[in-house]
Amino acid sequence: MDKDAFKDYEYPDLEPLPPKIEPEIILPCDPTADDKLYHICITAISLVVMLILAVLARRTKDGPRQKGLPGLLSPVNFLDHTQHKGLAVAVFGVLLCKLWGLVLLPNPLPFTTDSQNKQNWLLLGVFYYPALYYPLLACGTLHNKVGYVLGSLLSWTHFGVLVWQKIDCPKTPLIHKHFSLFSSLPQIACLAFLSFQYPLLLFKGLKGSEKNNATEDLSSSYYKDYVKEILKKKPNKISTSSTETPRLHQRIIDAVKLYIYTPEDAFRFPLKLATSAVVSFITLYQMGLLLILAVVPTLQTARRGVNEDVGRLLTSVKITLSPDKHEVVRIVMYYIWCVEVCYICAMTLSTLVNLAMLMRSMVQHRSNLKGLYRGDIYNVYNCQRNIRASRPALVCWMGYTSFTAAHICIGMIIQTLVFFLCLLIVVFLVIIPVLHQQNLILFQFLWSMWPFWLMILLAVLIQHVTARFCFIKKTAGTRDLNNRGNLFLLTYLLFPVNVLIGVLLALWRMIITALFNIVHMGRMDISLLNRSVEAFDPAYRCYAHYLKIEVNQSHPVMKAFCGILLQSVGQGSNAGQRSQDAEEGIQLVQQEKKQHKVSSAKRAYGHWQLLYTLVNNPSLVSTRKHFKRQPAGSFVNGSLNRNTKEGSKKEAEAAASN
Amino acid sequence: MDKDAFKDYEYPDLEPLPPKIEPEIILPCDPTADDKLYHICITAISLVVMLILAVLARRTKDGPRQKGLPGLLSPVNFLDHTQHKGLAVAVFGVLLCKLWGLVLLPNPLPFTTDSQNKQNWLLLGVFYYPALYYPLLACGTLHNKVGYVLGSLLSWTHFGVLVWQKIDCPKTPLIHKHFSLFSSLPQIACLAFLSFQYPLLLFKGLKGSEKNNATEDLSSSYYKDYVKEILKKKPNKISTSSTETPRLHQRIIDAVKLYIYTPEDAFRFPLKLATSAVVSFITLYQMGLLLILAVVPTLQTARRGVNEDVGRLLTSVKITLSPDKHEVVRIVMYYIWCVEVCYICAMTLSTLVNLAMLMRSMVQHRSNLKGLYRGDIYNVYNCQRNIRASRPALVCWMGYTSFTAAHICIGMIIQTLVFFLCLLIVVFLVIIPVLHQQNLILFQFLWSMWPFWLMILLAVLIQHVTARFCFIKKTAGTRDLNNRGNLFLLTYLLFPVNVLIGVLLALWRMIITALFNIVHMGRMDISLLNRSVEAFDPAYRCYAHYLKIEVNQSHPVMKAFCGILLQSVGQGSNAGQRSQDAEEGIQLVQQEKKQHKVSSAKRAYGHWQLLYTLVNNPSLVSTRKHFKRQPAGSFVNGSLNRNTKEGSKKEAEAAASN
Repeated sequence: MDKDAFKDYEYPDLEPLPPKIEPEIILPCDPTADDKLYHICITAISLVVMLILAVLARRTKDGPRQKGLPGLLSPVNFLDHTQHKGLAVAVFGVLLCKLWGLVLLPNPLPFTTDSQNKQNWLLLGVFYYPALYYPLLACGTLHNKVGYVLGSLLSWTHFGVLVWQKIDCPKTPLIHKHFSLFSSLPQIACLAFLSFQYPLLLFKGLKGSEKNNATEDLSSSYYKDYVKEILKKKPNKISTSSTETPRLHQRIIDAVKLYIYTPEDAFRFPLKLATSAVVSFITLYQMGLLLILAVVPTLQTARRGVNEDVGRLLTSVKITLSPDKHEVVRIVMYYIWCVEVCYICAMTLSTLVNLAMLMRSMVQHRSNLKGLYRGDIYNVYNCQRNIRASRPALVCWMGYTSFTAAHICIGMIIQTLVFFLCLLIVVFLVIIPVLHQQNLILFQFLWSMWPFWLMILLAVLIQHVTARFCFIKKTAGTRDLNNRGNLFLLTYLLFPVNVLIGVLLALWRMIITALFNIVHMGRMDISLLNRSVEAFDPAYRCYAHYLKIEVNQSHPVMKAFCGILLQSVGQGSNAGQRSQDAEEGIQLVQQEKKQHKVSSAKRAYGHWQLLYTLVNNPSLVSTRKHFKRQPAGSFVNGSLNRNTKEGSKKEAEAAASN
Repeated sequence: MDKDAFKDYEYPDLEPLPPKIEPEIILPCDPTADDKLYHICITAISLVVMLILAVLARRTKDGPRQKGLPGLLSPVNFLDHTQHKGLAVAVFGVLLCKLWGLVLLPNPLPFTTDSQNKQNWLLLGVFYYPALYYPLLACGTLHNKVGYVLGSLLSWTHFGVLVWQKIDCPKTPLIHKHFSLFSSLPQIACLAFLSFQYPLLLFKGLKGSEKNNATEDLSSSYYKDYVKEILKKKPNKISTSSTETPRLHQRIIDAVKLYIYTPEDAFRFPLKLATSAVVSFITLYQMGLLLILAVVPTLQTARRGVNEDVGRLLTSVKITLSPDKHEVVRIVMYYIWCVEVCYICAMTLSTLVNLAMLMRSMVQHRSNLKGLYRGDIYNVYNCQRNIRASRPALVCWMGYTSFTAAHICIGMIIQTLVFFLCLLIVVFLVIIPVLHQQNLILFQFLWSMWPFWLMILLAVLIQHVTARFCFIKKTAGTRDLNNRGNLFLLTYLLFPVNVLIGVLLALWRMIITALFNIVHMGRMDISLLNRSVEAFDPAYRCYAHYLKIEVNQSHPVMKAFCGILLQSVGQGSNAGQRSQDAEEGIQLVQQEKKQHKVSSAKRAYGHWQLLYTLVNNPSLVSTRKHFKRQPAGSFVNGSLNRNTKEGSKKEAEAAASN
């Protein structure tokens, strides 16, 4: 917003009326770097880059660390905790900004100005942009100097052209003169990050200090550190504090801590969650920008346009604000100003609420993931579930990041709307009447009901006081009822009053549940429904499924275990075999075991270990090979499997043994 | 509703326009039995009845089974399962109807016609009516023939005068001509029940067949039957069925069964829940009546009043429905008729939904109570709680019945409103356009977006199909991911499409959560909030507290235990002591134990039993006398105490032993 916008929020002066300002007419602006030409060129360049990368990949296929062509086709490993997340996150951010422009701009694709078939172009754009930005991801996959050089060039081009366009045309006629500029800021930031990151990678590659830890997931020290951390003895402070009821300020601090995300050394987010967080943040920014720039300038224009015609219009529908015409104009302007302030407050509140919710979600994700790693399924899901890959789980996992963004969008719209209405009611029924000491309708209504309020208050008070002092008898640590006869009598006599209290309670229930659901609309990690029907909330259902895949496929303890196994196998056999795809480590272990003849003593030892594990963990039997029975059978009668730390170990062993 | 009302719902004919019917003018009607005079008389009579009862109570104080004056002051034992519930429930029904009249009638109290200070009279009435109907309850307390005769006379008077008044003045000008008549039907039914019940009690008393089981709670066979039932061996069918996934039709039958309350022999509702159910049902009836009679006749009058002026009015605001004036009138009448039908459907739907919810609540109450009796606290509350009498618990217990009624009121209003709006949208955007093949705005809009819907459908389909056939590998009972590279690639490429799918999902989430909360608004036994903040829902909080008192104070196993103890003590000492207040059995056991010197062998045996119990149930130590530590300490680390059947036994033993 420019300087004028802030000036607008000063209270409008009584006299003189501000001079009529002609609305600034913004002409459509054609940047020197024509969008159509630029896109044709960059598409061609991207294609060439991909071809070069493919040739490179084929040539270096048998090299010691590279992944070859298949690696080029899957540049992101979403199931990885240790990968350098920057590249993928930045590309997702750029993609989201482009999608945003796609929906809002009249010409979704730069190749055409046919705004008649906007919808069809939009559908095309939805697939065009991921393909366009794909090389930006792929350049980093090969861990090759040529790849980094190409990546640097490509990201510089994208960045340079975008910045050039924005400098050329900072003002556009769409929505608000600066909307387009502000809206592309996250995109510029992401591209700037990429333009900085690729040269950095190249520099590291030249120096040879890059340890390839981006791909060698299993050999990373993170998983071992995680295992060390959970095996470390915790200081035994739980038993001392939980016997006493925590004090109020301690409880407040604990509650606040839940809304502040502090990183922990021994825990890293999976890439998909990190992407979701950044995507959510960008959505928050874009949505806030749209909400403010689409409405506030219109209201300002309306306020400036108020003249004596408005007074005439009001008198024609028999609303007389004041006999003086100037006074009427002033009052109407003042009211519109109030509406504006309410709207901005509502929007700000909504943004802040969503920011807090985003932080809370991060804390919740971490505690859920750690809980599931521990095997604490019941606490996370509130029921016994199979943490297993399945069709719906996989579909939810694929869409999770996108769904988060969409939920924040819808959540912010609803929140702004509801907060705006509430603020309007408060301002026009409470604040303005109190300030001007007139039209105190609400207060007069409430005041005229004072005997009613007094009765309600007395009834509540009587019940609490009698319950405390007459009807409850404390004897030696136990509490029992006393004076039952009087209790029953009072219950009968207060029945009608309690119905009236109940009406207030029901209204309060309505307000609190509606407010809770509206505030938490953007969060997918909690269900907005009652605990027994949680799964009917589509967002929560998706989150629950997402967690399943994440825990099932990237359990840190399992990965640490596989890493150690791979290392030991690698030491035993020739070291060249280690170059095989580390991601498929679990399968590898099995294959390599078969390929290399292990000494019979070792095999016997392995068999013994397996048997020992199975005897001690009967629930694992069901996950063994050639075992057809459903594992659900082992949870007959809903018995809880709460052996927390063992759970994760079991899983790793199970993965390794079949 | 009279015959005309039904005729109104025939589709309005095209020609000729119905002749203008002058609205029937209903004059205020003064019944022969003047309300003011009647109330003065009945108040005096009630006072005399109470005096007679008091004298009787004092005279028969030392009789073998009577309760004396204190009993007269607490005629209802709300913590009783075995009491004959009819009398109390009927009086509560009458009281509720009176409260309803109090709020709606212009003159809340019959003593005055001062409608200026309606509010103050209402507040007075809130306390006057419970007092007025109190003798109807008290007459049954003494279990005395004179009491029954007085009760019969009093209930006949109430019933007779009310019926006489309604026959005299079936039509009143308030809300609708028949509103007053229909509204008093539940009251008449309750009074008729009382008029029938008191003579029946008298007849039984004369025949001597009344076994006084209304007061002798602990000596009732119900509690022993309950204990026998829970100790009976269940046929072992759980283990066979739970290993297989239940079939669809079985699951549907199970779901339907949850909404149909079937009485069980071995379980009776506490009086307070029975009262709540009846009160809820009467509220449902009254609210439905009010909703239909307050709105529908007005709409009908509006429809009849449509003439050519409406057409002129519409053309003045530039809405042209048709060039023909008659046609315009016909169309407007048709639209108003549609609105009427929508409203009636919404109201009916709301009533049906609330009836279903009422049934579901009954089933839920039973399962919750049985669960808590078993000690299954974690399943009911989703956390570990102390089932103990406390101040807030007692206050909630006192108000529970009233709160239920109030919640159903508010729930029905909101439901009717929301359903009405939804139906209006459906009718005016879908049904009428389809029927008349014009103004198909919604369909045209949806149809114009077909490429979008197709893309969404294809994207969802692709994700499901690939997840099923390409990305999940089934080997020997376990499932694992396959083709990870392609999975990651697809996830990246479908990111923008999934954002669009996410928007639809978020809208669906909004609709489903709003609908769920609106439908369940009238139910207090479930929380409308997320499981972690359940207690912030005031209604659920109240219900949870209510259950605490109910389980803590009227646990059937504990009562059976106390009954057996009382019996054995009664056999050992003189039989006259049994006349003491049976409700205070728990305290009695202790006192009598002290009073009568038990042989030292018996005492030693008792000590041994106590020690044995405490050693085996360490959690009971905290509820023992002279024990100051909070019992919360025994639940360190939130460990579950799921020894279900033992829990209830422990409690009974604990109650008896301290």
